[in-house]
Amino acid sequence: MSQTKWYKRGNKTNDVDQADYLNKEFQITEKFERFDQKNDIFNRAMWDETINPKKFFTSYDIANFAPKKSKGFDHWDFAFRNASWHLTDVVGEYKYESEGKVEGFTDYYSVQTAGSPSPLALESTTETTRRIKLAAGMFGSGMTGVCEIDNRWIYSHNYSRKTQQSTPLDLPKGMKYAIVMIIPQDHGLSKTYPAALSGASTGLGYGTGLHCANTLAQFITNLGFNAIASLNDTGLNIPLAIQAGLGEYGRHGLLITPIYGPNVRIAKVFTDIPLEIDQPINFGVKEFCNICQKCADNCPPRAIPKGEPQDTPPNFSSLSNIKKWTVDAKRCFKFWVGMNTDCAICIRVCPYNKDYTKWWNRVGIRLANGPLRKLMLKLDEIGKFGERVLPGKWWG
Amino acid sequence: MSQTKWYKRGNKTNDVDQADYLNKEFQITEKFERFDQKNDIFNRAMWDETINPKKFFTSYDIANFAPKKSKGFDHWDFAFRNASWHLTDVVGEYKYESEGKVEGFTDYYSVQTAGSPSPLALESTTETTRRIKLAAGMFGSGMTGVCEIDNRWIYSHNYSRKTQQSTPLDLPKGMKYAIVMIIPQDHGLSKTYPAALSGASTGLGYGTGLHCANTLAQFITNLGFNAIASLNDTGLNIPLAIQAGLGEYGRHGLLITPIYGPNVRIAKVFTDIPLEIDQPINFGVKEFCNICQKCADNCPPRAIPKGEPQDTPPNFSSLSNIKKWTVDAKRCFKFWVGMNTDCAICIRVCPYNKDYTKWWNRVGIRLANGPLRKLMLKLDEIGKFGERVLPGKWWG
Repeated sequence: MSQTKWYKRGNKTNDVDQADYLNKEFQITEKFERFDQKNDIFNRAMWDETINPKKFFTSYDIANFAPKKSKGFDHWDFAFRNASWHLTDVVGEYKYESEGKVEGFTDYYSVQTAGSPSPLALESTTETTRRIKLAAGMFGSGMTGVCEIDNRWIYSHNYSRKTQQSTPLDLPKGMKYAIVMIIPQDHGLSKTYPAALSGASTGLGYGTGLHCANTLAQFITNLGFNAIASLNDTGLNIPLAIQAGLGEYGRHGLLITPIYGPNVRIAKVFTDIPLEIDQPINFGVKEFCNICQKCADNCPPRAIPKGEPQDTPPNFSSLSNIKKWTVDAKRCFKFWVGMNTDCAICIRVCPYNKDYTKWWNRVGIRLANGPLRKLMLKLDEIGKFGERVLPGKWWG
Repeated sequence: MSQTKWYKRGNKTNDVDQADYLNKEFQITEKFERFDQKNDIFNRAMWDETINPKKFFTSYDIANFAPKKSKGFDHWDFAFRNASWHLTDVVGEYKYESEGKVEGFTDYYSVQTAGSPSPLALESTTETTRRIKLAAGMFGSGMTGVCEIDNRWIYSHNYSRKTQQSTPLDLPKGMKYAIVMIIPQDHGLSKTYPAALSGASTGLGYGTGLHCANTLAQFITNLGFNAIASLNDTGLNIPLAIQAGLGEYGRHGLLITPIYGPNVRIAKVFTDIPLEIDQPINFGVKEFCNICQKCADNCPPRAIPKGEPQDTPPNFSSLSNIKKWTVDAKRCFKFWVGMNTDCAICIRVCPYNKDYTKWWNRVGIRLANGPLRKLMLKLDEIGKFGERVLPGKWWG
């Protein structure tokens, strides 16, 4: 909470319509179609034989996987990474595992218990919104924003890992808002990407996100309204987060937030409780990414584009008819499979990835967001900020 | 992590035997017997008709409970408090709910998944201990210590809420150590005790504790050893925490830690992985509690003793044959029942309950721990540190 004090969250766009903002920013055409969850690279890996994900997924089951000897990929590292996912696995799989559902990843959570039989009479939408955001902060959210649910970002179809089929997806009727929450990841761990060790940063991010989203959804349910907790399932987090005023889109295809940079996870709650919506923010990221290619230069499988935003994706695992930098999901994921773990070198090397608790880093970010951005990029290189911390060094 | 930098964790006692230390500190006699979980006040409420806990427990089910109008106990407050318990409820009840078990409260957790088939060959016990503590910190522990499991603190019997019977309890063979973790609670919320609102401080403490203990237990399981995650079930946390060097015992019957005071929850993992044990610490709490009676003076049901430590408890819901300050659990819990929520005024008013991130509070605590303790107690009164923050003010 206190971190927000020192940071003006960028220039709020002047009362623009959230949907129009994205239309303009990303030149979305009329041909745009909602994304089928089946084509998401993690689900596609289940049915597309050109992707062989076995080496990746089996490594999350240490009972059947022999860790390597190299630092960052040894028994300590895999034991730690897999443990970091434990709660997400337990809560996500206990209800409908037999049906092939993975709550938080293919389906939204269904663990909410009965709330108040009649909705609380709310005094004002402003006050409700303030309290919901206060609660979200207590539950682990680092930044919380609200947008109207723009249906374009809800998956057209829901994929079942059991039947390998996808069926049309619509949110329950009446769901009007998405409360989007930014879950900060550990800066120190994320400096060690790529490694099984750094995968714990990812796992812990999801663990906090699941706690946060489910607790907030239960809070709203308890107030007598409907709420659905969601992580990566159901819809695309990044456009919703942008509409909710939580950050800008970066070259690496990730959200860049003003107070944690790109080193975050995103969780969300869909709800019908009346809320005030936020305005998208613009604090200089696009201008910076235009002159910076660090993520693209440092991506081993060359999955990040170096040029201008494009409106055709590298393959059908990304959106079409929207002009943006798009990562080649297949190249990216194949690199993960080869390593037995996720990679986020793009987060590590991003000049926005800083320890924002240090004032000198905050000064650097101010430079990045203004006309001295080239100087900041130079200083970032000289200071070797994006360099990898060796996993052996992390363990101490 | 960084908070530990400024604080020497008190004077380590000189290589004493952990069990002997408690024998001497608390004058434990040979007649001492392990505690039957059935007599724990929360379980006793299930079978002892002199306690009618209904008003308390039903308030945790908002579908069947009408909140009040008063601030701190209204719909927002109960919705928030109950939500804060959500994850603990879900994970604690999903496996053996039908058998009347509540994992984390009557039984240890059973959600661990299969680990490595063969244990990792460990290089040194010192290094293993260091890494386990590092991991625990990443999982949410504010301070982590290790003790050998002193069987006296393991419940003699395990109580079933279904059969209302208790059966002899023994930990699985080979369990040698308890890794004890301190889970800090939110200082701001805890300033509002007593209220349904402040009950969220408790609920969130347990949520973090369950995440922390289960993730750490899974980490150790993944390394190929045995580990059991536990909150309030199975054994008494405070003596284990004292043996593990995490704090001292206070007049209010709570653990006082050197870097978070009494505003903490305790979680633990029982394990057979070889570890180095910690030494109990002594940093002046006993001397301070001897001259301070703020908790006793401010306890509405007068459940906290004002005098010297005694070796006979007020009733059979506490240990016998051990000389200590003992809270009258029945009086305490009846007060909770009357309020429909838990109370921790004793935490709120304790002069050790401070926001330790502020330097002036850390100076105050140094005073409390030295010959100027009377001055500190006076300053604490003048500064009105223990005063309640009104729940309406907390919501802002």
